[in-house]
Amino acid sequence: MAPDTLIDGVATDRLAVADRGLQYGDGLFETLAVQDGAPCLWREHYHRLARGAERLGIPCPPPELLLRESRQLADGASAAVLKIILTRGHGGRGYRPPEDPRPTRILRRHPWPDHPRTWEKQGVAVTFCRTPLGENPRLAGLKHLNRLEQVLARSEWRDREIAEGLMQDGRGRIIGGTLSNLFLARAGCLLTPRLDTCGIAGTVRGLVLRLAAGFGIQVLERNLGRADLTGADGLFLTNALIGVWPVRRLGTREMNLDHLPWELITAVRRAARTPDRGRNT
Amino acid sequence: MAPDTLIDGVATDRLAVADRGLQYGDGLFETLAVQDGAPCLWREHYHRLARGAERLGIPCPPPELLLRESRQLADGASAAVLKIILTRGHGGRGYRPPEDPRPTRILRRHPWPDHPRTWEKQGVAVTFCRTPLGENPRLAGLKHLNRLEQVLARSEWRDREIAEGLMQDGRGRIIGGTLSNLFLARAGCLLTPRLDTCGIAGTVRGLVLRLAAGFGIQVLERNLGRADLTGADGLFLTNALIGVWPVRRLGTREMNLDHLPWELITAVRRAARTPDRGRNT
Repeated sequence: MAPDTLIDGVATDRLAVADRGLQYGDGLFETLAVQDGAPCLWREHYHRLARGAERLGIPCPPPELLLRESRQLADGASAAVLKIILTRGHGGRGYRPPEDPRPTRILRRHPWPDHPRTWEKQGVAVTFCRTPLGENPRLAGLKHLNRLEQVLARSEWRDREIAEGLMQDGRGRIIGGTLSNLFLARAGCLLTPRLDTCGIAGTVRGLVLRLAAGFGIQVLERNLGRADLTGADGLFLTNALIGVWPVRRLGTREMNLDHLPWELITAVRRAARTPDRGRNT
Repeated sequence: MAPDTLIDGVATDRLAVADRGLQYGDGLFETLAVQDGAPCLWREHYHRLARGAERLGIPCPPPELLLRESRQLADGASAAVLKIILTRGHGGRGYRPPEDPRPTRILRRHPWPDHPRTWEKQGVAVTFCRTPLGENPRLAGLKHLNRLEQVLARSEWRDREIAEGLMQDGRGRIIGGTLSNLFLARAGCLLTPRLDTCGIAGTVRGLVLRLAAGFGIQVLERNLGRADLTGADGLFLTNALIGVWPVRRLGTREMNLDHLPWELITAVRRAARTPDRGRNT
């Protein structure tokens, strides 16, 4: 049977406890959709990982190595999830990073999530989380391994009808969902939260920002509060696995789906689910 | 040879990559001094771990189990460090915590750090870090595994003469060192930063708060800025391994050590280095 996990290229699911990924959350991750045996949005994921690694001072493995291992795990899977973790590797006890870090790469295949198919067309119900997001410009936008805030936020609800919870920073600005980015339709434009002090800059968020112009839609990054959301013409959420989820209910408020930019959404969804069989980066 | 690592009681240093400690930093840790074959401040460390576990919703192993394993690793070591990590254990992919978590406990013995002995009496040089601390009341005070901020702060200096770096929150309040708590002597009182939005409530910090009254010294938790530090009669740092370090230099400023509460410091140091051979908690 094909392995589902590779650590530094070796088929094993056991990691040294000395790894700084465990000790300090000293690393990054990517969550990729796999379709028809190949990862989707490979370039976007690799570039985000490489940019994050540069900001944290972690050497990033070359794209051809990660792509080869990703394809090895994706091979034969009609639909799956591929999670890539990159840590700063071993290091003595203590926060100080080693001067010559030898990073650890962990690739793991997971089953495709079983979200109801109706959520894509009919939209999802969304709640507001009480757990705030701490602000830190040094970490903002990065998909790093320090995710306790998301864990606490996600533990606030158990109702399976609720697909996602929105999180705010300490100043009441909406940043996004626990695992998704947020877009708001207003007067023909799209607005999305600024991510300069917290939040994760998602790959599909990046797709929306890139593809919108082709549909004549302006996208603006803004500070957004709760009133902006309830006053919006429509809302949708994005991430690499869900693609795009329209929001049909926000708290107790029913949201209209008619004013969402459906052509753009269709294009984003298609791009997010296209297996990437091309070059490395 | 005696093992240096126990995972759930088994002598191994390999952890399942599915563990949420790696995936999300979903866990807590304690760093204990070991002296003469036994852990120091056992009760304080266990109580902090148990309180943190309660706040995060992680079941905490019973004290007798952790103490037995701690003593197993400490046995025979004249001076060592014992690190205990408690994670939420395995869990499927995704932030949502399992409803019936089976936590993982990882105990590991490390060598005693080789700080210069002169630092205890003559004091240490301290710098200011630029990496800020994000504020989150849900996580404040906890010794959790999300420590990227400390890793980035500790990577700001390499000068071995500098023992520690002070960190501020986004509003400019000094919270403490990368691995220590801070006390400031002023007019016969001690002041220490409030830890209600970030920072770690250290065990030796707790000792200072408890023992000070016996020496007729009032300790106040306050919002403290940089000006408070430079205007102080003296400064010292605390943690479970260093005990107490007086600060002899803050940035470029020489600090006076004469007005520090030396009797209290001596008592705190003694308590922090006394092997705990008593009851469980």
